[in-house]
Amino acid sequence: PRQLVDEVDGRDMGTPDAWIKRDPSLIRLTGRHPFNCEPPLKDLVDAGFITPTKIHFVRNHGKVPKIKWEDHRVTVKGLVNNPRVFTMDEIVSLPSHELPVTFPCAGNRRKEENMVKKGLGFSWGAAAHATSVWKGVRLSTLLKECGVKTKEQGGKFVCFRGPKKELPKGKDGSYGTSIAIDRAMQDNWDVILAYEQNGKPLAPDHGFPLRIIIPGFIGGRMVKWLQHIEVTSKESDNHFHYYDNRVLPNEVTAERANEEDWWHNPDFIINDINIQSAIRSPEHKEIVTPTEGTYTVKGYAFAGGGRKVIRCEVSLDEGRTWTLAKIKRGEAEWYKQHGSPEQQRNYDSRGKHWCWVHWSIDLEKKRLCGAKELRCRAWDQDHNTQPLHIAWNVMGMLNNSSYRLRIHETKTESGEKGFWFEHPCLAGPQPGGWMVPEEEVRPQALYASLGGVDPRKIPDTKFTVAEIEARNKEQKGVWVAIDGLVFDASSVLDEQPPKGVVITIGGTTYAQEFAGLPKPREVALTNKFQGGKLPCKGKLSK
Amino acid sequence: PRQLVDEVDGRDMGTPDAWIKRDPSLIRLTGRHPFNCEPPLKDLVDAGFITPTKIHFVRNHGKVPKIKWEDHRVTVKGLVNNPRVFTMDEIVSLPSHELPVTFPCAGNRRKEENMVKKGLGFSWGAAAHATSVWKGVRLSTLLKECGVKTKEQGGKFVCFRGPKKELPKGKDGSYGTSIAIDRAMQDNWDVILAYEQNGKPLAPDHGFPLRIIIPGFIGGRMVKWLQHIEVTSKESDNHFHYYDNRVLPNEVTAERANEEDWWHNPDFIINDINIQSAIRSPEHKEIVTPTEGTYTVKGYAFAGGGRKVIRCEVSLDEGRTWTLAKIKRGEAEWYKQHGSPEQQRNYDSRGKHWCWVHWSIDLEKKRLCGAKELRCRAWDQDHNTQPLHIAWNVMGMLNNSSYRLRIHETKTESGEKGFWFEHPCLAGPQPGGWMVPEEEVRPQALYASLGGVDPRKIPDTKFTVAEIEARNKEQKGVWVAIDGLVFDASSVLDEQPPKGVVITIGGTTYAQEFAGLPKPREVALTNKFQGGKLPCKGKLSK
Repeated sequence: PRQLVDEVDGRDMGTPDAWIKRDPSLIRLTGRHPFNCEPPLKDLVDAGFITPTKIHFVRNHGKVPKIKWEDHRVTVKGLVNNPRVFTMDEIVSLPSHELPVTFPCAGNRRKEENMVKKGLGFSWGAAAHATSVWKGVRLSTLLKECGVKTKEQGGKFVCFRGPKKELPKGKDGSYGTSIAIDRAMQDNWDVILAYEQNGKPLAPDHGFPLRIIIPGFIGGRMVKWLQHIEVTSKESDNHFHYYDNRVLPNEVTAERANEEDWWHNPDFIINDINIQSAIRSPEHKEIVTPTEGTYTVKGYAFAGGGRKVIRCEVSLDEGRTWTLAKIKRGEAEWYKQHGSPEQQRNYDSRGKHWCWVHWSIDLEKKRLCGAKELRCRAWDQDHNTQPLHIAWNVMGMLNNSSYRLRIHETKTESGEKGFWFEHPCLAGPQPGGWMVPEEEVRPQALYASLGGVDPRKIPDTKFTVAEIEARNKEQKGVWVAIDGLVFDASSVLDEQPPKGVVITIGGTTYAQEFAGLPKPREVALTNKFQGGKLPCKGKLSK
Repeated sequence: PRQLVDEVDGRDMGTPDAWIKRDPSLIRLTGRHPFNCEPPLKDLVDAGFITPTKIHFVRNHGKVPKIKWEDHRVTVKGLVNNPRVFTMDEIVSLPSHELPVTFPCAGNRRKEENMVKKGLGFSWGAAAHATSVWKGVRLSTLLKECGVKTKEQGGKFVCFRGPKKELPKGKDGSYGTSIAIDRAMQDNWDVILAYEQNGKPLAPDHGFPLRIIIPGFIGGRMVKWLQHIEVTSKESDNHFHYYDNRVLPNEVTAERANEEDWWHNPDFIINDINIQSAIRSPEHKEIVTPTEGTYTVKGYAFAGGGRKVIRCEVSLDEGRTWTLAKIKRGEAEWYKQHGSPEQQRNYDSRGKHWCWVHWSIDLEKKRLCGAKELRCRAWDQDHNTQPLHIAWNVMGMLNNSSYRLRIHETKTESGEKGFWFEHPCLAGPQPGGWMVPEEEVRPQALYASLGGVDPRKIPDTKFTVAEIEARNKEQKGVWVAIDGLVFDASSVLDEQPPKGVVITIGGTTYAQEFAGLPKPREVALTNKFQGGKLPCKGKLSK
């Protein structure tokens, strides 16, 4: 595999992904494995319009498939006149299309939601968006090659999936989804099957050798390791098309979602992402002194559906009044500098905006320091903006509440009066931030969520990750660390959750850790754990 | 003209529109003339999915042009190979397309914004949306007839305008705008030139004989009395394309907008409308008793850009938690009942939603009566929702803050304990509602806005509308009633503002009344009035 960095990170040793070289600066959100990560927010924004591949966030449900370019095949079937199987070389030989596209995670800023109330997913911070230059073949080109049938002939959706048996969920273990045929076939939607990211073949974590890129959509629909394309009259029936990437209404709990089957309600699917923004500067714990001059507040913003970001604003009075920031449009610049004349012309007239913007505003330091909080929000071209409050939903999806820093008085190292900025929380297991996790607010809720583990009865014994790993390797049972506590899960797990791996995330909710586990284990462990059946052996040593 | 009702409304007598028969139930928002109106909210919602033409809101900038079907011509020119002039009969002879489309006013619910702070526009209530079945020819059909040039050949926009010299603004006095060529030419955007509304030729107020319908867009771009279509490489340069239908940022006042020319910033144009909703039941002043059983809360919701409304919700706790309402999708039903097989198939697969929905939820009366307020909000398919607070802007556009009723204890007529519901405010000059107008909160601001008329120095003399009208008819001068005060405007108006008409709106801001006036009078009156130069003669008798 192409090297993103020089060597394999120590944390990947002993996992099925030990062959992939990953940047050690990435913050791991679900322990060591499977690999789900985002970069520090400041690194992401400071890298500029195009995100270096090595710090592009990653969402893996399981181990990364080891695929060889020459062995890979892409099947196109269903409502096409000439079903075909393509080699990668055949795909590359078709006319190519290259363009910058922002790749947004539907779970971006889920940690804030999890702080409000525990949900089903792990704790993304605010750096699960990234922008790459993707190169590939238009999906429409491939489908036309195969004689795609018209809508009149029944071809209404295009379904995609990765390798079978990749994951222990769904009927064939593949990750898949679908899009409407209009989106697939109309050129100004720019849907491509990408084999290059930022000028190089895809990295294994990003779908080598082929992934679909659907500009404007959430990343969860941009299937990696793409193997199978089928034109159908109905939406995909893939497990992940229904049981992931949905915003269920506020009142729907995990239990109700399953019992009343909210998953198949077509209204709650996420495709194009809502309007998003976050603040990069000041960063968490940064100190500003109330001296003369200005401080440059900075951040990013993005909207799905090709909608332009038209306003980025900050507020120093809890959202009562807002001041306009300057917007830097990297996408327009990219087309000017790198686009062919045709691409430049198309960019001007296609009316679609596929990329994030960076924004900045110079504020008087004295004014900034005189405030209690600093917020940002953005607006899309249809004048939708971000709400002031989190709209909690059980999957913790699409949190686009106005991003909010608190400002506190402090002293600088030299004893001067200063003010430090506190972000709401930090990605994954990192402590810090002004949001108070639910368990600190509601000990009763914590008690219930720990499944009957009375916090007063947790043994004081401490175990290190190494000790737990050693036990497991010696097959003395299957112990897992969940939310800082160590449990003997032997009664419900007959093998170690991915071999040699200990779930050691820490973080604030146990649900975070389960999200990365294959389904059968997840169910077993969650149910038993919730029932207080797993013996608690002690605490995790940090 | 086709009769909407049996006779001309008395209020139209003596105005240039005295030949048009209008429904007397319509609430006039800018006095008698020009005609700007909306129906009572309950009538609008109770009429169901399709709004009867006679209660469809109307926005007229001036008098309605008297056009004869056989005389009307539509010119198509610019970047087309065969410029042409069409008669109405020729347009009707082309293949037709008929479909239901919701027609939303960008100023819907502006009165709430005006209550927060006076803006530039008059006070729409929450009934400036309506849905009709429109029939016409696809714009793409007409343009193809004329050999429209491709984008590569420079054809990027389609400009439209109504009759020249219709209005005293802009270089030719026409009302016009433009749309992107993709929107015009792609069939699934359904842009049509409509000559029928709800099965009959257009009414004069709605653009007889031809208007453009751009599904998803605000009504302000759906040019009436359409005369001229031009394919261009640039956006329309029409006055109204820039100086109307914009959302300027919060901090931009009318003065800054002009001085710094915010009007030509391409980011602030309104095309597709943001997500909207309002509550019809309980209506203003309705009383509910806290007895057993449920009360059905009802309303409408709509989103632009073809986006589906996926959630309608109500909150009884100031927006902290929300409960899902049931959605009735009239559009899907319409296609089932009235669509051809082709239309039905297209509706299923086009992925566009052009119509509002009606929603309802049965709430326990006791729970409803136990709350302090009742709010609603809706969500679009990209998971954008309505903010809790008004994002004030100088034109008072696109107010989509969550619609909010206050609940107060009272007694029913029979002496029982009951609770009455208070809407934020009522359309146009109607008094009532919990929102406190700015002038009651800030007497200083009022003093400034009254242009130097010291409230303590207003004569106690009272005049009725009839008395003022009589004076004006006898040519004793030109008196006008503005915001409850009577002024002698003879020094700035050399004729009565539209003959025989007294501006008698009352309402909460004088700006309301001026918005509907032709420009020269508006400027003269506003400037003089602001300078405190108009002699104040007394108060308007109610």
